[in-house]
Amino acid sequence: MGEKAIEQIHGDRVYRPRWRASRDWYSLRVPRSRVVIIGGGFAGLQAARSLARTPVDITLIDRRNHHLFQPLLYQVATAALSPANIAAPIRRVLRKQKNVEVLLAEVTAVDLEGHRVRAGESWKEFDYLLVATGVSHSYFGHDDWAPLAPGLKTVEDALEMRRRFLLAFEAAERVEDPAERQALLTFLVVGAGPTGVELAGAMAEITRKSITRDFRSIDTSAARILLFEAQDRVLPEFPVAASEKALRHLEEIGVRVRLGERVDEIDEHGVLVGEERIDTKNVFWAAGVRASSLGAMLGAEVDRAGRVHVEPDLSVPGHARVFVAGDLAHVPNEKLGMVPGMAPGALQMGAYVGRAIKRDVHSGGEAKSPPFRYWDKGMLATIGRNRAVASLWGRTFGGMIAWLLWASVHIFFLIGFRNRVLVALEWAWMYVVFERGARLIVGNRSAESGKGS
Amino acid sequence: MGEKAIEQIHGDRVYRPRWRASRDWYSLRVPRSRVVIIGGGFAGLQAARSLARTPVDITLIDRRNHHLFQPLLYQVATAALSPANIAAPIRRVLRKQKNVEVLLAEVTAVDLEGHRVRAGESWKEFDYLLVATGVSHSYFGHDDWAPLAPGLKTVEDALEMRRRFLLAFEAAERVEDPAERQALLTFLVVGAGPTGVELAGAMAEITRKSITRDFRSIDTSAARILLFEAQDRVLPEFPVAASEKALRHLEEIGVRVRLGERVDEIDEHGVLVGEERIDTKNVFWAAGVRASSLGAMLGAEVDRAGRVHVEPDLSVPGHARVFVAGDLAHVPNEKLGMVPGMAPGALQMGAYVGRAIKRDVHSGGEAKSPPFRYWDKGMLATIGRNRAVASLWGRTFGGMIAWLLWASVHIFFLIGFRNRVLVALEWAWMYVVFERGARLIVGNRSAESGKGS
Repeated sequence: MGEKAIEQIHGDRVYRPRWRASRDWYSLRVPRSRVVIIGGGFAGLQAARSLARTPVDITLIDRRNHHLFQPLLYQVATAALSPANIAAPIRRVLRKQKNVEVLLAEVTAVDLEGHRVRAGESWKEFDYLLVATGVSHSYFGHDDWAPLAPGLKTVEDALEMRRRFLLAFEAAERVEDPAERQALLTFLVVGAGPTGVELAGAMAEITRKSITRDFRSIDTSAARILLFEAQDRVLPEFPVAASEKALRHLEEIGVRVRLGERVDEIDEHGVLVGEERIDTKNVFWAAGVRASSLGAMLGAEVDRAGRVHVEPDLSVPGHARVFVAGDLAHVPNEKLGMVPGMAPGALQMGAYVGRAIKRDVHSGGEAKSPPFRYWDKGMLATIGRNRAVASLWGRTFGGMIAWLLWASVHIFFLIGFRNRVLVALEWAWMYVVFERGARLIVGNRSAESGKGS
Repeated sequence: MGEKAIEQIHGDRVYRPRWRASRDWYSLRVPRSRVVIIGGGFAGLQAARSLARTPVDITLIDRRNHHLFQPLLYQVATAALSPANIAAPIRRVLRKQKNVEVLLAEVTAVDLEGHRVRAGESWKEFDYLLVATGVSHSYFGHDDWAPLAPGLKTVEDALEMRRRFLLAFEAAERVEDPAERQALLTFLVVGAGPTGVELAGAMAEITRKSITRDFRSIDTSAARILLFEAQDRVLPEFPVAASEKALRHLEEIGVRVRLGERVDEIDEHGVLVGEERIDTKNVFWAAGVRASSLGAMLGAEVDRAGRVHVEPDLSVPGHARVFVAGDLAHVPNEKLGMVPGMAPGALQMGAYVGRAIKRDVHSGGEAKSPPFRYWDKGMLATIGRNRAVASLWGRTFGGMIAWLLWASVHIFFLIGFRNRVLVALEWAWMYVVFERGARLIVGNRSAESGKGS
């Protein structure tokens, strides 16, 4: 404090001492503990929010400046929405919560004994730690497939997918050779979880409806959309009835679903499935997940995907004040095996950890938290226009009702009133005129694309 | 045709013969000439559209899939709009015009004698050619400044600018050293043409209004916005009265304008202006322009910036059926010296070339076109909320009226009803809550950013 105050006296106008920002009606009475939250996803953000009225100093660290509404990321990849529609600056979301400071930095080390984490160049001390850095996708040991079959976890992933998807048609319009054109117009999605199903569905819809009249030499509606799933049904995490409905929906809109088959090899020209060779220039990855590397740094047991086996109160074994939440946590669940890695679970865990810290702070570490209970609100996945599946309250239904439910739930949970309005507008527009809002081919990862013409 | 028809018989469903696409009520009567348009900017697009009812086969070639509404690009750079708001897929814009095919390809060579251009891997023959590939920015021989001081011509440019602009505050929030923080919060714009003025104005507005409450350690409203102009007034292309109004507006919102001063040196840590050293991590380039390299390939005389000196009918000397339009054309104008490189000029030239080709086609080359006349509709530039300057009908005015005029004109000219609505909505929102819609830091050119956290 002192040194900072001096800085201010010396008239460094850009500087504003911290106490002014973090003052609230507690701060003068209670000594404040330091809470560090790593990851601004659903779990991290929810935890921070639920500590709004607790006399703690929170530091939320993320290597992105934005919270991403993952459930709609596939719509960016399929040119329906712009990244800004489904992302909000973390700072802005927490702007009014004065006991939070947001840090854009990458955490490279966790020192549980020293009660500190390494964020960028500096160390950050904590009394309570929440690690909620989620998962990225796994290629099951075939990391060389990454450039050939992009996955879908970040905004960059989505833009790269969108770029490849849109470029395929442009290239097909140019080439004369039928075989090559066929390969360019073959889109192969690996993995039929919610993301894979939603991707394949959207791609079928676009090729059949949105862009059919835009091209002169090719018939986009003849494009092949292939969806591969190693297990024996789509949406394996859903009830069987939902999987069957989803499968029917997918076939209705022209997606060729291949169940119980595994993609054995991927190269620039296509994939190998058992003996069968499929020529395609477009492979998209929606199969496995791999936990963020921070999980392993906690020294606790991890499962095959690298998720941390946590205590019933989501704390790390042996560290009562270090928590893991969201996709990074492996939380057993009697009904579902484990809590599925989706938004609802992350939100519930985040809120739970917030409450646990609050209780601990107020009771001075006396009160013990009851174990975390996952409330299964049901599952939703959309296949396309008027087509979705929902399994709620033990019942499963599909079609229009499920679709409307899906749309309203997602609009509702979108962070920020503003985005809700815009996304609703985009969707209404898309629904009426079958037009996609963001058909832009922009740059690419490998910086090869220079100035525009 | 024959070979293509056969392909179809052999049941290559992906193939659709060209004649079906390009059929119109002319095609069976008149032999059709081939028009090749290079560049899908204002000039190229306008030319294609004005040939909608002319019995020609048009090929519009662009290395981007989208038409970009350049006048609003600075709003993407300053996090107000998403790229998709100001860009429309060229295919979609021309979808209904059956005598146009759009080709996503880069033109690497022009063979005027052979009446053909090299697009990607193949040659494209033409009877009429329009080159409208515009300009990119010039560093006056200091191309090594490009990575240090990004310019603003493409969507990638804008995203890169936005990334740097937003990252500066994040870094400033992290660092403790006052001098470094000061450097991070110093934003320097080189060149006070419309783009430079609009950039500086928007940056001042953001630092003073939009994000003041988002940070804990820094006071963003203390950030320095410097605008350098080598000439003795801002908006040199505008009338003097407009320049004075613009200068007043800029100073009102806290931009420090430095006239008659040239930036002599740029490095990672700042710039050198004469003897004065200015420490800044953020330099943005809005100074010179350099014509697209295609201009030089036409063998005609070019001006210092590489613009082509065209005949009064915008044709290339010695080639009556080869035209240059838009920013790439150097068109003398008694009142303004030359037609300014802005949207209105490009639109008028594009329409003129369209008419010229039409006349030539219908008259079989007999009728000569009257020389191109630039209709000066006046000039508009915005400085920020409620502040703009307009010079219309010989009169100059600023403030609110000019600003409203600016807003409505730009909304009106935005391609596509859809974008108009969305942009209007974004602006309304921004106006009411001082919030920017697209505060996203995404990837970057040099691919260094990996998966998200």
